[in-house]
Amino acid sequence: MALNIGFVLFDRLTQLDLTGPLQVLSRLEGAKCHLIARTREPVKTDTVLDIVPTTTFDECPQLDILCVPGGRGVAAAIGDAELVNFIRGQGATASWVTSVCTGSFLLGAAGLLDGRRATTHWAYKELLPLVGASPGGARVICDENLITGGGVTAGIDFALQVAAEVSGPGVAQAIQLALEYDPVPPFDSGNPKFAPGPVRDSLEPTFERARQEMREALSRRK
Amino acid sequence: MALNIGFVLFDRLTQLDLTGPLQVLSRLEGAKCHLIARTREPVKTDTVLDIVPTTTFDECPQLDILCVPGGRGVAAAIGDAELVNFIRGQGATASWVTSVCTGSFLLGAAGLLDGRRATTHWAYKELLPLVGASPGGARVICDENLITGGGVTAGIDFALQVAAEVSGPGVAQAIQLALEYDPVPPFDSGNPKFAPGPVRDSLEPTFERARQEMREALSRRK
Repeated sequence: MALNIGFVLFDRLTQLDLTGPLQVLSRLEGAKCHLIARTREPVKTDTVLDIVPTTTFDECPQLDILCVPGGRGVAAAIGDAELVNFIRGQGATASWVTSVCTGSFLLGAAGLLDGRRATTHWAYKELLPLVGASPGGARVICDENLITGGGVTAGIDFALQVAAEVSGPGVAQAIQLALEYDPVPPFDSGNPKFAPGPVRDSLEPTFERARQEMREALSRRK
Repeated sequence: MALNIGFVLFDRLTQLDLTGPLQVLSRLEGAKCHLIARTREPVKTDTVLDIVPTTTFDECPQLDILCVPGGRGVAAAIGDAELVNFIRGQGATASWVTSVCTGSFLLGAAGLLDGRRATTHWAYKELLPLVGASPGGARVICDENLITGGGVTAGIDFALQVAAEVSGPGVAQAIQLALEYDPVPPFDSGNPKFAPGPVRDSLEPTFERARQEMREALSRRK
């Protein structure tokens, strides 16, 4: 039986938010993955990788797993009524509603996080209450059929957890082994709790601007 | 000053071998990333993600960092003289010659691993001597200007190490924090040493066929 897994595309998404989970989830039995945008024109990401949609909002089948990536483009995408309506509609019927990184704010803009526990990129967690969600502490948060992951690389941990929920732990473990996911980060700097102060400080101006963009985008939609 | 970073494309590459490092390395100062193929036609990967080349073998500038991803398509690509010649030429002049996963066998087919220490996906390590390399035990192996990573997801650890070599540890740590790379795999199954026996056994037939394809491809080039 086909398992329809859909990734929502928008300009300036962070490509690894999508490509990490895509690598994992495309190995589920029956997986039929869809890259979905308004048109079939290639979508710009935050890198030189353009993503070619495989289907459109209008033509996309009903999804079993809805997955929304994040990125700096989320703030603009929140103002895109057609995209938010697509997420709202699919989110109402999908078996699993999921996001990676700041994709959670698009789920939130579609009204799908109200009263739910969720997570997002560490730098944006304080904004989750603006979409009615209560921020969880783990890298991946499961709240019934809602599964949300932390920033960017969390998409791999997230997708293995989704794989385990959907197809069982044995399948998830086989995918993990095939992808040799036995991480050995060369530094202990992936979390603001442990990263060196100057490293954290160097990112702060960029993230403060990004949070401000997000706050404005969320307030405009009201 | 521009830092030219080139990723070599071929049919049926494993997209995360490329998209993981691309996410990390595109954040280096001056990074100009190139997705390189014979033509500008989109290249098929192992998932529904087609990759649109940004340049061609003929038009690609001299690279500072050459990066070759892996995947089931490597065996066929070893027989593509134009592609192997491109890797040989750029590998002779690049400051850093690198691969992720079975991309190492394309470096090897181009004669770039002779007498060098290198790594690859765990299931293919035993084949490294066929291209003159001695397999190392770590997830990322640096041998002078040659940096090779293990299977698929090792590309993220690999790229952070490349970032540290090229731009210093502070830059690599800031990228790691921005990408929230603080991995928490839901299972301890990413390494054949720890993965449950039945999980390992379930993959064995596929990897045995894949190793046979690789052996044949490597023997045909002699």
